[in-house]
Formats: sequence, structure tokens, C-alpha cells
Amino acid sequence: MKDFFLTDAVKHRGRNIRSHFLVAQKQLRERNDGNGKYLSLTLTDRTGRLDGRVWDNAEILAGKFEQGDFVDVRACVDEFNGKLQLRVMDIVRLELDQIELGDFQRKSARDLDLLWKQLRDTVTSFTDADLRRLVFAFLDDPEIARRYKTAPAAKFMHHAWIGGLLEHVIDLLQFCELAAGHFPLIHRDLLLTGAILHDVGKIYELSWERGFEYTLEGQLIGHISIATRLLEEKTKSLPGFPKHIHTLVEHIILSHHGSLEFGSPKLPMIPEAVLLHYLDDAEAKMLAMREACQPEGLPAPVYIDKVRALERPLVNTRTYMAQAAAKGE
Amino acid sequence: MKDFFLTDAVKHRGRNIRSHFLVAQKQLRERNDGNGKYLSLTLTDRTGRLDGRVWDNAEILAGKFEQGDFVDVRACVDEFNGKLQLRVMDIVRLELDQIELGDFQRKSARDLDLLWKQLRDTVTSFTDADLRRLVFAFLDDPEIARRYKTAPAAKFMHHAWIGGLLEHVIDLLQFCELAAGHFPLIHRDLLLTGAILHDVGKIYELSWERGFEYTLEGQLIGHISIATRLLEEKTKSLPGFPKHIHTLVEHIILSHHGSLEFGSPKLPMIPEAVLLHYLDDAEAKMLAMREACQPEGLPAPVYIDKVRALERPLVNTRTYMAQAAAKGE
Amino acid sequence: MKDFFLTDAVKHRGRNIRSHFLVAQKQLRERNDGNGKYLSLTLTDRTGRLDGRVWDNAEILAGKFEQGDFVDVRACVDEFNGKLQLRVMDIVRLELDQIELGDFQRKSARDLDLLWKQLRDTVTSFTDADLRRLVFAFLDDPEIARRYKTAPAAKFMHHAWIGGLLEHVIDLLQFCELAAGHFPLIHRDLLLTGAILHDVGKIYELSWERGFEYTLEGQLIGHISIATRLLEEKTKSLPGFPKHIHTLVEHIILSHHGSLEFGSPKLPMIPEAVLLHYLDDAEAKMLAMREACQPEGLPAPVYIDKVRALERPLVNTRTYMAQAAAKGE
Amino acid sequence: MKDFFLTDAVKHRGRNIRSHFLVAQKQLRERNDGNGKYLSLTLTDRTGRLDGRVWDNAEILAGKFEQGDFVDVRACVDEFNGKLQLRVMDIVRLELDQIELGDFQRKSARDLDLLWKQLRDTVTSFTDADLRRLVFAFLDDPEIARRYKTAPAAKFMHHAWIGGLLEHVIDLLQFCELAAGHFPLIHRDLLLTGAILHDVGKIYELSWERGFEYTLEGQLIGHISIATRLLEEKTKSLPGFPKHIHTLVEHIILSHHGSLEFGSPKLPMIPEAVLLHYLDDAEAKMLAMREACQPEGLPAPVYIDKVRALERPLVNTRTYMAQAAAKGE
Amino acid sequence: MKDFFLTDAVKHRGRNIRSHFLVAQKQLRERNDGNGKYLSLTLTDRTGRLDGRVWDNAEILAGKFEQGDFVDVRACVDEFNGKLQLRVMDIVRLELDQIELGDFQRKSARDLDLLWKQLRDTVTSFTDADLRRLVFAFLDDPEIARRYKTAPAAKFMHHAWIGGLLEHVIDLLQFCELAAGHFPLIHRDLLLTGAILHDVGKIYELSWERGFEYTLEGQLIGHISIATRLLEEKTKSLPGFPKHIHTLVEHIILSHHGSLEFGSPKLPMIPEAVLLHYLDDAEAKMLAMREACQPEGLPAPVYIDKVRALERPLVNTRTYMAQAAAKGE
Amino acid sequence: MKDFFLTDAVKHRGRNIRSHFLVAQKQLRERNDGNGKYLSLTLTDRTGRLDGRVWDNAEILAGKFEQGDFVDVRACVDEFNGKLQLRVMDIVRLELDQIELGDFQRKSARDLDLLWKQLRDTVTSFTDADLRRLVFAFLDDPEIARRYKTAPAAKFMHHAWIGGLLEHVIDLLQFCELAAGHFPLIHRDLLLTGAILHDVGKIYELSWERGFEYTLEGQLIGHISIATRLLEEKTKSLPGFPKHIHTLVEHIILSHHGSLEFGSPKLPMIPEAVLLHYLDDAEAKMLAMREACQPEGLPAPVYIDKVRALERPLVNTRTYMAQAAAKGE
Repeated sequence: MKDFFLTDAVKHRGRNIRSHFLVAQKQLRERNDGNGKYLSLTLTDRTGRLDGRVWDNAEILAGKFEQGDFVDVRACVDEFNGKLQLRVMDIVRLELDQIELGDFQRKSARDLDLLWKQLRDTVTSFTDADLRRLVFAFLDDPEIARRYKTAPAAKFMHHAWIGGLLEHVIDLLQFCELAAGHFPLIHRDLLLTGAILHDVGKIYELSWERGFEYTLEGQLIGHISIATRLLEEKTKSLPGFPKHIHTLVEHIILSHHGSLEFGSPKLPMIPEAVLLHYLDDAEAKMLAMREACQPEGLPAPVYIDKVRALERPLVNTRTYMAQAAAKGE
Repeated sequence: MKDFFLTDAVKHRGRNIRSHFLVAQKQLRERNDGNGKYLSLTLTDRTGRLDGRVWDNAEILAGKFEQGDFVDVRACVDEFNGKLQLRVMDIVRLELDQIELGDFQRKSARDLDLLWKQLRDTVTSFTDADLRRLVFAFLDDPEIARRYKTAPAAKFMHHAWIGGLLEHVIDLLQFCELAAGHFPLIHRDLLLTGAILHDVGKIYELSWERGFEYTLEGQLIGHISIATRLLEEKTKSLPGFPKHIHTLVEHIILSHHGSLEFGSPKLPMIPEAVLLHYLDDAEAKMLAMREACQPEGLPAPVYIDKVRALERPLVNTRTYMAQAAAKGE
Repeated sequence: MKDFFLTDAVKHRGRNIRSHFLVAQKQLRERNDGNGKYLSLTLTDRTGRLDGRVWDNAEILAGKFEQGDFVDVRACVDEFNGKLQLRVMDIVRLELDQIELGDFQRKSARDLDLLWKQLRDTVTSFTDADLRRLVFAFLDDPEIARRYKTAPAAKFMHHAWIGGLLEHVIDLLQFCELAAGHFPLIHRDLLLTGAILHDVGKIYELSWERGFEYTLEGQLIGHISIATRLLEEKTKSLPGFPKHIHTLVEHIILSHHGSLEFGSPKLPMIPEAVLLHYLDDAEAKMLAMREACQPEGLPAPVYIDKVRALERPLVNTRTYMAQAAAKGE
Repeated sequence: MKDFFLTDAVKHRGRNIRSHFLVAQKQLRERNDGNGKYLSLTLTDRTGRLDGRVWDNAEILAGKFEQGDFVDVRACVDEFNGKLQLRVMDIVRLELDQIELGDFQRKSARDLDLLWKQLRDTVTSFTDADLRRLVFAFLDDPEIARRYKTAPAAKFMHHAWIGGLLEHVIDLLQFCELAAGHFPLIHRDLLLTGAILHDVGKIYELSWERGFEYTLEGQLIGHISIATRLLEEKTKSLPGFPKHIHTLVEHIILSHHGSLEFGSPKLPMIPEAVLLHYLDDAEAKMLAMREACQPEGLPAPVYIDKVRALERPLVNTRTYMAQAAAKGE
Repeated sequence: MKDFFLTDAVKHRGRNIRSHFLVAQKQLRERNDGNGKYLSLTLTDRTGRLDGRVWDNAEILAGKFEQGDFVDVRACVDEFNGKLQLRVMDIVRLELDQIELGDFQRKSARDLDLLWKQLRDTVTSFTDADLRRLVFAFLDDPEIARRYKTAPAAKFMHHAWIGGLLEHVIDLLQFCELAAGHFPLIHRDLLLTGAILHDVGKIYELSWERGFEYTLEGQLIGHISIATRLLEEKTKSLPGFPKHIHTLVEHIILSHHGSLEFGSPKLPMIPEAVLLHYLDDAEAKMLAMREACQPEGLPAPVYIDKVRALERPLVNTRTYMAQAAAKGE
Repeated sequence: MKDFFLTDAVKHRGRNIRSHFLVAQKQLRERNDGNGKYLSLTLTDRTGRLDGRVWDNAEILAGKFEQGDFVDVRACVDEFNGKLQLRVMDIVRLELDQIELGDFQRKSARDLDLLWKQLRDTVTSFTDADLRRLVFAFLDDPEIARRYKTAPAAKFMHHAWIGGLLEHVIDLLQFCELAAGHFPLIHRDLLLTGAILHDVGKIYELSWERGFEYTLEGQLIGHISIATRLLEEKTKSLPGFPKHIHTLVEHIILSHHGSLEFGSPKLPMIPEAVLLHYLDDAEAKMLAMREACQPEGLPAPVYIDKVRALERPLVNTRTYMAQAAAKGE
């Protein structure tokens, strides 16, 4: 891990630093003094972004890297009109094997290989042979497996980190297992299949090689329709796969957002789809609350002004009770 | 149980019957032939309603019972202009101890005393002493206990039968218990308290001595505000009850409908309130689906045209799979 | 064509008729007089539906045909409690080759083979080779061609007749051609591809062998997602088909309803998708107005109380002007 | 009253000032030059807020006051990167009796004791004895009286000043009196009771000892439910208070926001509740317009860009007419 | 007034009647028995509508009156398949001077000439000369005066009777006068002008010569735009009328529905427009409640199931209090 | 054209400039140093706005021009706290004939006289004599003609430039002509009349002598009602103009926004009004997309983050295809 992050720039005001960054923007511009050009940069790491300027040899250096590259930078932390800025003295392009991706992306704190094994074990436990071979057709596809293991679950909202999708699915599977036991109406394997495949389209909707971004395909098609395309591919590859099971799984994927205005082209119309929508939504909201109530490395707050995923303020039950008990209220 | 129900009237067209009914409407009217008056009645039992007419001695009989009374009726099932009608020959008022209430109201198929015991056992298991004494202050109140054991959970929608409220709460408690184990953020006793008290206002919002109706207080105040009034009463009766726990429980009751447009004056703002909303809603919708997919005494359908509580059609996963498998699709 | 239609039943009150019908419902029921069973039927043709009763030999006749069959019926047009009813004297099952489908379904007044040829000619005119081979991959598929030529465009709303989908597409193509000439920004072949494929999923969403119904797949998946599944199939079958063209066509299909609440999981985000939404919507609404303003076989009205597809009343410009001019207003 | 307010800071750029402030935020931070710590403050008075910095003896001074304290400050008005800032030279904690609360809170311009007397006189005029004793049970409660006399009516919107609630109620009562005379259907005392009690929950929903803030109870419960809780308390304290009057008053309080999406759990369903909603809303909006059209100490504008409480721009009838008349339009 | 009304038809079952009716529908149809034609009629008066049949001399009688005519009818009240029907024996067309319009239309119970005088007196009291001459330009226009004195205020909702518009305006004026005294910001004459002219377009939006109907112009243009057209006409006729006053009055008319979705193309943006919207809405809703709580000729109810203009049930405060007091609650 | 525009100020930092500006704001303020007053200005041209300061002789210069004047300015481009500012050394008021309006307003790139001729030629082609003389009554009115030729079509959204209204109408007319040919139901001249007159009210809703602003009349009345007022004027001026044609044209104007919530007081209820709404909306949105996809003087983008008029991101089909083809996707 690198030892300077942009979040700490203010502490280094006026000093020289050296670190790795991702070049988010790069533009060669005319100098106002008429003495040729300068380079205007935006440099990022996993903690933030900062403007940079190359005043000397700008045109030569500009030829040595592109927007989107990782770079090694030597610079001075200046303050210009009240904003911090990196005055770049040297900048060198880096290969992917020269950086630590973790310097640029938040990553799951859990063991992703272990989670992956849990996922596969769950599928092995299916009693419905068709659903089992269907889900394994996904998990045994090397490209899907590779992307599924690392994909974030979102760009901003919940589980926006490397491995977030897998984490979310594992937690959801456990909740589904409990609920399937509670509701005898539910076809357990079908519900779990829905939990594993409902968001699988995110592995192509998002890109996370560098920052977390929507792909152009993701923007135009969306993860729901990408998932149904993958489903079509996989069922085609399975000899004699029953059409009605394809239809049921496709229906769960299409309807899992729960309402048309949230982007599901169909309302949930089978018990497993209705239930999955509730459990998926509850799981995501509970995570958002956990992150708000137990922020990493910070004291737990009593009152949280606005939680984005819930669009409202939040009160932390535990700290509120502790505080009130302490006051003897 | 009586042996003639209104749902079977068509089978008795042209024959005489004798049975108990509830008088839903009663009007003395002028006969068209100028020969005095006749009685126009609406008679109901738990299976439906039918018009009745008393042509002879109408004024004398009219003095012997009131709208809202249970009556013993001898009549002939006539057809008049294509509609069935009871031509009443004799009608006698009944005391409450002469009828079986079950003839007039749908009732839970489960043992309500057993459910009540389960409810109390759950509260006994609370580790939080304040929440435990609060909930017992409700359950130990004889009037609340009596009404809670028999109240329906709704007039129409879900659990619209005697004991429906208790049944709903017992099932919800089990789901809450599972979810509290799954989400460490959750204060288990607070969540369970919410499950037990969120709908307690329904014991005064509805009346079910005869049919299921909203009380006038229910119409003007609503079960949410009735519940917070009961809560105020009970906490006042408990010496030194902590105000912050009152506030948290009141918040859960107020917010359990999940959004303002569904009648909650506050959005859920603590983890237990957010989660209870999901679980309560899911539990009610799953019941509606179970009733639609497994109708009592009827073959399970594949396609259900419109399920009122979900405002959409439904496909029954199990029968759909069985049918498709049979067709070899 | 048969010579008795249900719409004319009132003119035959009290007389005997003989004609072909589709059995929409069939139930064997207990007679009230205790003398065995009778058959309760609902019989339909393209002009309406009527109840039927078989009183004699009901159980024997009941074994000779099923719900969904076409039948030849001899009956008397009775009036019972103010409603017409067919008292059926004889009923015989028919094979498909014994009936004229046109007796049971409204059909396009236009030459569908000619429209099909126009459709293919339009595709031949494409300058974009990839879009041309893509659309022909659909049109050359014998099953798709067969269904596309006869599918209705809707169950109720617009173009709800045999050949309605093809008619709608041909008219829309002409409108698109004009608009593509008017807006230089538009990629003409892509817009026309969208016009041809946007509703292709309806060929499996609906069934029209007998009445017009949604298939179960149609209910659970919807024509938009069926269309993207077909697209996936066809592009897979075309060697080296460019992914970005697949993406653009898929986007147009997904977004053509124009907003999420109308069932499109994506908003139109490319010029061709935005424009197609307007033209498709305008074309459908103009047809609904044409049908309301110029009803077949009826005088053109001035004021139309409520046009379902537009959810409002309508004034017929032409007749309103003629009437006002006649009055000298 | 102090003689320097933050709204005038710009006029004192570069000069030394001394004044009382409320410490809204206080943080001890590391200096960038490595020479220990500095204090970062946000200081407020009733006219605004400004950042402050303590560079010398920061750690010692930091121990002498807390966030939320009132302080006496000597400072120089600096400009740093285009923003004004107080460079604090000395800071001393003040007791409540050393400050004038009026320096920190906007206050009603009217005589609150006189308004309070008017309020009580109105209640004395009630002919309905139950409503009279009910309202006096509130007004005679010393804590309620103390808070009611000073509470603001809102944090931001209308009447956001000390005494604002009482002012709003007095004006509303007068409007209600007029309307009760105009509509014979209306029960005058019930309407006036609604006017006096509808917002009484605000005395605990808000805190205004220092700034105007929501209490945590206010956030979780809201003023509507706080008011119904107080109502329960007061009716319990009145021997033989009729339940139906409790129900009517509670209904008015619950429904006075007029619709569910504005936080009323019940729609107004009695004439007095419907009317009170209109009058209360009109009274609040008229005040917002009066403040916009006749701003204190400023010339009356013709056009007001956006009035927050009305979410639209406004034209001032009087000045518009005067201007147009002057131009001879 | 005629002595038989359709609301009483049931009491005359089987007897002969003679009365005046309005012919709402008239169709000559084929008899089923092949013996020529019969006339199918719908006959109405102010209490309802009933079907009529002419079996003898139908074609001859059909030539003697048209749909929309008033007629004198001799008929027998038959019952056919459970519905009442008039078997017409003779029918004669009536001139307008042969009928009493009051037999066909509900009419105000108040003295319309007196109300008209009150209206004019109010305008005389204006201190603003321009507004005074503007309103008199309307009231002195003989056609406007004639229609304004008799127009209903609506087809169904509130004040749906002859003179309803004038009644509504007079009541509203009184309320406006009170409110103008209460709010010093308000320009009294402008507010009253708004009250008099806001609905003036209804005199052409509706027709009430016979039944209450929308005119075709009313459907296409609406009363708001008709009113602004009349305003344009009148201000054009007044020499040197100030444009800014025209603009203010037009704005009040345009915005009086209060929001775009209720058909106002502009939100109220001046104090008089905002206030008029509240008062007009309150006045209309209070009338609807008065009619529901004090139905003419019926006992006042406690609970009213659904009041159309308010889209909710209603509780009648007075009868509820009386009933509860009687029960000692 | 002047040779310095505000968009280029950054290139002149530290240098002296001289140019024409419009004075958008002007305030005389106290200097902090106690040495009298200074002038605070906001200066604009068609490319942007910048603050200006007059430090010397401020009071004398202040008397020589007003807010809203065009001025000739000599100044130095300073940077103060990181923001550019004009330090004004001299400022002189200009008459309208001394400036080029084009320096202050964006202007159509097309020949407006030619467009005007096309507009008149279209009207000449009308076969309906009444519609022809109606439209010419507008176009022959010198003031209308003058304003119509230069009006922008909007303040911000689409066609926000001099001549934008005329440009929009010409393009729309061509689209209408095509559509009228495609839909035989459509009355071509009525549709074209709608296209020409639907937005004519904008000539008084907006002012564009200097910047683009709403007039006060525009704010209070809106262009739809202004247009119907002009229509009333013009039809009054035409002897014997048929009322029903007035009604139809007025209906098209009123309803062209397509729904109440977008400010149309009536829904489109005739075929021409329904179609015009689609074509007008499509035309405006296509223009917004053209401007986003082909920005003047910039390379065509692939992805556009958010297009304001469409409230969504956009993908540029052409560049996306070119880019993908280049990458061989």
C-alpha cells in the first residue's frame, strides 16, 4: 500500500510528496503568459481526487501517459486561491503490475474465496436438479466466476466495493434460507436461485478495473436485461433444459426491483419473486443502516442526519438507549 | 353449527328452509296494493346475504326484533325477477346464547389459547426488563387480553377472521426471531415488542361482535393512534418507566406502515422500525398468496386473475411447474 | 362465413338457430329439481358471447367436447329473466378444418401477403449490411414469419385483430421513413429496424389461435423481454455480428414504451429510441382516433364520450365543422 | 443588546471587534506547520454564522468552554481566500444570566403576555363546558403555559421566532371566529379548541433554549402524536370527561395537515377538521406572503423570485399597481 | 308543478299515470314478432329517468316529437323482468310555455333577484373605480346577467341547481369580505372582483335549458378560458382600461383552481389569488358537507359513507355529539 | 462585433481591455476604509457575466448610467481571492444605435427573412379560406410580425436564441406537412394553423431587447393564455368569422402542452391537437439532442452526461458506432 493518500493532502500543505495516482482527466492548455502550454490534470486514489498542474516540460510529459493511466508522481502540495493543488514536478506511467489495485479501490473485508466456496456449497445442496445445473452453468463459466468474485454491488449505494456483490449475495442467501423455512409456500431452490442470479448482470453493467463506473452497455441495457441475456445463453447450453423453469427464473430476475418505476418491467407475480424483492430490499437497507450506525473507525453516532440509501435521517437505537440510560431518562 | 347457509340458497329454490340469520337491514314499507305494509329485510350469515320479505302480519312481526338482532327464520326460497329472495313466514328474535357465533363469522382454524400461550412465552423470554414489563402490562390487562385473543386483523384484506390478529402476530414473531438472529444490528426484544404492539389498536378500531366493522372511533382516530394512546396509558401505570423506551416503541408503532401515504405519520427511522415494516408487509402478502394459491376446499389454480392485497394477477409456482412437467415443456 | 352471429341473437328471440361457436366455458351442474345434471356453457364468436344451457342428456353431451373446442350447435334463443340464453338441443365438436377462423376473430381488412412483401422490400433497401442481415434473420425464420403475419398488436387496445401487428408496423415504417428524412440526426436503418422489431415479442406474448389471450409466458416475461431474447438468439446465429449494433437495437426495444412506469426498464437514450417512442405512440393513438371518428358501418359522430386508448372524450373535427357550418355558426 | 452582529462583519473587515456568540461547532486540529494545535470554531448569533480560528494557546482555551456555550469573544475580522473569518484573540465562557437571549434568537414583535391573555379570554367565552375545561387543563399547566408562550411555530418556515406559535394561534383564532360566524354548520367552540391545540405538540417537538432545533423525540414522534399524548394526559385528569369529545378533538389534531402525504394519519372527516385545515393553511401562507411583500426594513419589492413556503415566485399586488400606475400602463 | 314524478314510479306499479317528461333518448326499432316497429324512449324529469315503450302506432307517434322535446305522456307503469317501464299509450309534444321548467331542474331555494341585488350592491361599494366599472361591464351586459342569474355552478358536484352559481358567489363574497378585513395585505376590491368573475365562464361552459350538460365549447375550452375571453371583450369595451388591472384579474381567474393538475394553467402568484383559492375551495367543500349533514327532508345522519366532493366518509359532529351524550359516553 | 467577450477574460488576466457590456446590476456601496463609496457592478455580454468595481469617482460615474443600460467600459482584468473581476477605470453610457445587439444575444444562424417568407407561403397554400385569413390576420399585424421574426422560443430550453421561435415553427411546419400526408384523418390546414399559432403568445411572454427574460405579464398569464387573447382580438377583427373555427384553434392552443401538469388547462381532444402535441414535443426534443450530439465548434461526444431538456444522459449513435467499429467490437 502506498503511504500518501489524497485525503491527507491538507496535512502536507507546502511539502513535497511522491505517490501513485490514477489520471482521471488530462488536458494540455495555453498558458496565459504566452510561454507555451501547461498540463491540467485530475489525479485520484481510493480516498479522493485533486487537481494537478505541470508547468515545465508540459508538452513532453503529456506524450508519456494517457487519461486512465496509473502514474507515479512527484509533486509539491500548493494552495492556490484557497484550494489545494499538486504542482507536479515529475510524472511516470506505471504498468498494472507496478501498482496495488487496493490503493485505488475500496475492497471487501471478508475472504472472497471462502464466500465463493459457500456460494457453491449452497448450490450443491439444491434438490432440484435443473436449478442446480443452471446455477452451476453460471458459476463454472470462468469469466463469470472471475467477475462475480470481485464485482461491486453498486457504484454508490450499498456494497460499493470490490467483492460487494458476492458479499451481498451470501448474506441474502442466508436470509432466504431462513425465510424459506418460515414460509412453506416457497420453493426453496427457486428462491435461492433468484438470490444468486438476480444481480448477476452487474458484472457487465459496471466496470471496476480502475474506478467504479457504468459501462456504456450498462447504461443502455441495464443489469436486469444483461442478466436475462446471460440466462438465455446458459439455458441454451443445457440440453433439454425445461422452458418453464427458464421462464420462472427469468421472471424473478425481471421483477426483483419490485415496481415498474424502479426499473422492473414486470411486477413480481409468483411467491418466490414477491418474497425475494422484500428480502433483497431489506438486506440492502439493513446494510446501509449498519454502515451508518457503526461507521468504521469512528464512534457510533446517536443521530445520523441523512442516510442516502434510505432518504431520511436515522437514530441509532443502541447509542440512543445507552445515552438516555446514562442520563437516567 | 346451523345446517342451512345462504351460499346454498340456489340449491333450495322453491323449497322451505329454517335457519338463524343476522338482520343487517330492516324497513317497514307501504304495499303497492294498498293493503297495509310489508317488511323488507336483508339477512346475513358468514357465507353471504339475501333479501327477505314479510308479507303477512308485517307490522306485528316488525315490533319483535331490531336491525342488528340475530333471528330464527322460517321461509320459502323464492325467485323474483331472476333474483332469489326469502319469503319469510315466521321470524323470532334470538339471544346471544341461542346462536353459535361461528355461524356468522369466519374463525381461525388454529387453537387461540395455544397461540396466546406462545405469545406470553415469547415475552417471558425477553432479557430487557422494561420491555418485558411493558408488554405484560398489555397482556395482563383483562379487557385487552380478551379482545386481542379474538380480534380479526382486518375488515377485508388479510387475516379477516376471528383470531386473525393473534395469528398474524404469532407468525410475524417467528419471522422476527429469525431476522433478529440474522441482523446483529437489531435489538431483538425491541423488534419483538414492535411485532406484538404495532397492531394492538385494531382491538378498538374494529368491532366483530356481529359482522366485521370499523368503529366510529376507528374511523376518526385509526389503529395507529389508538395504539399510542394505549401505550401512554400503560407506561403511565409502570413506575419509573424510562421515557426513551416509550419513545422508541411509540416510534415503531407510528411508522410501521412504512410511508406517509399509507397512514404512518413518521417514516421508520430506527433499524428495528425499518425491519419490522418489511417483515410485517412480507408476512401479510405471503398469507394473501398462500390463500390464493391454496384455496380452502378447492383445487390449487395455476393462474389467479387478481389478488386484491397485491393488486396484480398471480401464478402459482408449484401447480405451474407440475402442469408444465406433465406436458413435458 | 357462418350466417348467424351472436350480435344478432336479439332478432331471433323465440326462434331456432344453428351455427358454429367456440366454447369459452363449460360446467356440469346439479339441477335444482333433483333430476340429475345440466350443462352450463358460454359460447362465443367474433361478435360476442352468450350463455347456453343443455337440459337433456347433459352428461352424455358433456363427454363429447371440451372447453376451448369449436362446436356446431342447434338451439332456441330463449329469454330468461330478461336475458337472452341459448337453450341447446344438440352440440357437436368440430375439427379446425371444419370451421372458418374468420368467424371467430376480427381480421385485418388489408392484404397481409402484400404487407409482408412491403416489409421485406423495406429491409432490402437498408444500406447498413449488419442491420439488414439482422432483420432478415427474423423475417426468414419460418416460425417467426408465420406468427408475425397474423399476430394481433394487442389484446384490447389498438390493432386488436388478426394481422394487426403487421399492419401497425407497416404504417409505422412509413411514418418513420418520413421522419428520418426530416431529421438528419437520425440513422434511418436503425430507426426502421426499431420499428420492425420493437413489438416482435408480441408473437409469443399473445395467443390468437382461438380468442386473443396473454400466454402465461407473456404474463410473466412480457413482450419487451421476449423480444430481447429473440434478438440474442438471432445475433448469436450471425457470424461476427457487431456487439455495439446488438446493444443499440436492444436499447431501442427495451426503451420503446418511453418511461419506466409504462414498463420500459430503460429510458430512451439515443436519438432513434427517443424518436421511435414518439412515432409509435402517435401512430397508435391516431389509429384509436380514426376508429372512434370513423366507426365501421356507423355514421361518424361529433362527440365521442370516452376513447379508451386516450382516456378522454373526443370531438370529431370533420363532423363538428360540417354540423357547425350547416347551422351557420 | 450587543452592538456587533455577524451580519455586519463585512463592514469591519480588518478591524478588531468584541461581542457575544454561541459556539455552534468546536474542533481542536493539528497545525500544518507542526507547531501543535489550533481551534476551529463556528460562531453564531441571531443574524448568521462565521468561522473562527484560535491560533495561540489553542489547547488551553479549548478547555474553557464547550460546543453549545455562549462566549464573549475578542477577535479580528480577517479575510482568508476570499472568505471572512474571525481570528480569535480571547474567548471566555458566559453564564446564561450574562447574555441577552434576544441577541441569539429572533423574537415576536408583539406583547406575548397580552396575546396570552387574549387566548385565555377566548377560552372563557366557550359555551361548551367540557371543551372549556379541557383547554384550560392545558393552559393552566405551568410547564405547558411557559413553553406555549415562547415556542416558535416552526424551525424554518412560518413564524420561526420566539412567540411564533402563540402569535400564529391568536391570528388563527380570529380567522376561525369569523369563519364560524359564516358557516352555521360549524361548532364554534370545537373549531376554536382545534385552533388552540392543533400545534401544541410543537412545544416538545422543538427546542429553542439556544438555536431552534428538533428534539430527538420531535424527530421520532412528531408534534401531532405529541399533542395527542398530551390530550390523553389532560382528559385523564378531568373527571368524567366525555370520550366522544376526546375523540373529536383528537381527530382534529390528527388530521390538521389535511392529507396523508403531509403527515396526517387521517383525513379530516368532520366539518370542523376540514375547515380548520383550510384556515390554518391559509393563515400560514398569508403570513409568508406578508413577510415577502413587506420585508422588515427593506423597500417592498414588485417581484419576489421564490417564496419558500409557497414554492413559487410572487408578485406584490400593491407595488405592482403603484409602479404600473406611475408608468401610466 | 306536475303531480307525478319518476322517483315515485314504484308506488304506481300497475297503474296508469299522466305527466310531463323530457325525451332524453328516442329510437325506432324493429319488433321481434315481425309486426313492424316500436318506439324505445328514455323519459326524464328532475327526479330521475325511466325507459318507455310505444308498441302501437309507433311510427306515427315517432313523427310527432324529437329527442330533447318536452312531452305530455299517458302511460301504464309496467314491470318487465324486474325493472319498471312506462308502456306509453299517448304522447304529445309540448311548447316551452306549456311546461314548468322547475319540474325538470332542481332550483335554488333562495330569492335570485335579491341575491342579484346584493351582488350589484357589493360592486357599488368598491372604492377602486376601474374594478367597479369592469365588474359592472359584466353585470350590465343583458345576456351575461340573464345567464349569470340562473346558471348552475356545476353539472354534478356543488351547487348543481338553477341559480347555484349566483348562490355560490354571494356566499363566497361574504367570506371574502370577512377575510379581507382579517388580512391587511389583501386588496379587498380585487379579491371581491375575483370572487365575482372567477367562475363566470360557466355561463357558457354549461347549458341548463333542459338538463345540465357541458356545451361542446365548454368541453373544448373550459370555463377558465371562456372567462378570460369575456374579460378581454369587456376590457376592450372600456376606454383607457389599465392593462395591469386586466393582467391581475386575468391571473386570478386563471389560477383559481390552485394547481396545474386541477386545470389552472398558472399557480396563484399574488396574495389575492392565493387567498381566493382557499376561500373558494373551503366554501364549496363546506356546502358539500352541509348537504351531507343536513339532507333536505331526511333525518341528519351520524355517519356518511362517502361524500363525493371530498372523496372520503364524513362524521356529522352535531348528531354524533347528541347520540354520544344520549348514551352517556 | 466587439472583439473582447467575457468568456475570454481568463486569457487577459492582468491586462487592460475595452469593450461594450450590458449593466445587469449596479449598486453604490460604502467603502470599508471609510473613504466614501464604490460602485459594485455586474456586466454581461452574450457569452457570460462578470463582477466589476469602480473605486475612483464612483459617485460621479454612478450618475451617468442605469442598470439595464449598455455601456462602453475600460478596465483591467484583476484576480481577487481567486475570482476574476473587472477593475473599471472608465464607463460611458451607449445608445442602442451604438451597439450591436448581436454582441449581447445568441442569434439564429438561418436567414430569418427567408424563413418568414416560407411561413407566409405555407399559409397562402391553405385551401380553407377562414383559416387562411385568420393566420394572415396575425402575420399582417406589423407588431406581431416584428416580434414573431425575432422572438426566442424559450428562455433556456430549446431554441433559446433570437429567431428561435420562427425557426422552431418552420421546422415543425415541415414535420406537420409530412404527418398530415400520412394521416388522412387530419385536417391539414387546421394542423398547420396550430403549428403557427400554438406558441405565438411567447412574443409577449418573453422580452429579448437585452437579455432573455420573462415579462411580468408572462409570469402571471403565460404564453398559452396570451395566445388565446390574441386569437380573440384577431377573430373579432374578421367579419363573420365562424365561431366553431375559433373554438377549434383555441382548443389546439390551450391543449398543446399535452397534459394538465405541464400547464395545458385542457387535454387534446381533437385529432389535430393530439397530433400537434406529439410533433411539437418530438421536434423540440430532437433539437435538444442535435445540439447535444453535434455541439457547435466542438468534437461530437459519444456519451453526454445529462441533457437538460430530456432529463437523462444520452449516447450519440453515430460516434458510438464509429468508435466501436474502430475498436472492432
